[in-house]
Amino acid sequence: MNTVEELMKQITSFRDERNWKQFHTPKDLAISISLEAAELLEVFQWSGTDLIVESKKDKIAEELADVMIYCGLMADVTGLDVSDIITKKLAENRAKYPVEKAYGKSDKYTELK
Amino acid sequence: MNTVEELMKQITSFRDERNWKQFHTPKDLAISISLEAAELLEVFQWSGTDLIVESKKDKIAEELADVMIYCGLMADVTGLDVSDIITKKLAENRAKYPVEKAYGKSDKYTELK
Amino acid sequence: MNTVEELMKQITSFRDERNWKQFHTPKDLAISISLEAAELLEVFQWSGTDLIVESKKDKIAEELADVMIYCGLMADVTGLDVSDIITKKLAENRAKYPVEKAYGKSDKYTELK
Amino acid sequence: MNTVEELMKQITSFRDERNWKQFHTPKDLAISISLEAAELLEVFQWSGTDLIVESKKDKIAEELADVMIYCGLMADVTGLDVSDIITKKLAENRAKYPVEKAYGKSDKYTELK
Repeated sequence: MNTVEELMKQITSFRDERNWKQFHTPKDLAISISLEAAELLEVFQWSGTDLIVESKKDKIAEELADVMIYCGLMADVTGLDVSDIITKKLAENRAKYPVEKAYGKSDKYTELK
Repeated sequence: MNTVEELMKQITSFRDERNWKQFHTPKDLAISISLEAAELLEVFQWSGTDLIVESKKDKIAEELADVMIYCGLMADVTGLDVSDIITKKLAENRAKYPVEKAYGKSDKYTELK
Repeated sequence: MNTVEELMKQITSFRDERNWKQFHTPKDLAISISLEAAELLEVFQWSGTDLIVESKKDKIAEELADVMIYCGLMADVTGLDVSDIITKKLAENRAKYPVEKAYGKSDKYTELK
Repeated sequence: MNTVEELMKQITSFRDERNWKQFHTPKDLAISISLEAAELLEVFQWSGTDLIVESKKDKIAEELADVMIYCGLMADVTGLDVSDIITKKLAENRAKYPVEKAYGKSDKYTELK
């Protein structure tokens, strides 16, 4: 059972051993997160309504990990704590999407009745 | 100090209390990760060479958390363990980017000499 | 001087000669536009504040063309006329961004005074 | 019947009346194209296998136009001719995807037999 801190350490050590922090402006990291998200999305291009993922699981694992690694790097350079911001955002989402209104609905909170 | 499992539990509980898993096909989650990555990127649109982020820190925190929450949901529905796939991908990256070749360079591994 | 119709014909002929329309759901085309936009964006990853594009011009041309080709395909399958929707959107943008308020400012219309 | 040049003129005039060219670095335009592509993609989020687009046609028109307008602006600042690059890219695609190999298949050219 890894703590988030242990994972973050793995991620930042990889970067620091290569002296790459100098390239990691928040803007270029935000670009990188978008690019890796696109590589993950590419797995599903032309899949139509075919939702079987077993054969694509390794590829999904790889691309999803890339997105999360860059997210960790962004958190690090901007001084954000991953656990804190996720916990806080979930609290905000709970307020935006109260169970009694949002149960079983995929509507955006601005359109919930 | 949260473990990754505790964070994952927070994320999936939020979803399950609202009965939203039915909407979470891997394809639509991959789309959602891309959309949230774009919202994060939007923070840096028109910022030119201005790299000051302090005033944008709350917005970055919020959007970055959204990306990571959807990553957690993707890991859950595809049966992937977040710690495992990050650790594994970092190992692959270490092989692709050996310290002696990649030190201080932003080149893609295909262009490293 | 090509008309938009002539360009559209080149684009749809390429598709139809290969019998590809069957794959072109609007959802998968929207994904494809996003993926090609990411490939264009990748040209600028890690460029920091370096805005020189001459050496990247061929790559930009190629990726930009890909985005526009998929946009043409999307217009075709959804029955939209490219000239019409651009002209209409520019009219809406003129209303949102009146010259006297927006002159020389990069603010979003919701923040213009 | 608009020529591409007439459409480009509409697009660049809108920009120049507002003195916005100063903000339009290729990097920020590439970001903008990605952001607009994401807004178009958002129309299809959570749509599952539901491919009916009639009710979403106005929204698609608007977001698709935004992507193309930014593509036009990118072509302008990088000195690329829209008709030329599309014609050239289609020629490259014809070479990559010969009709006899690609007919009725959605495979990437690297996987065609």
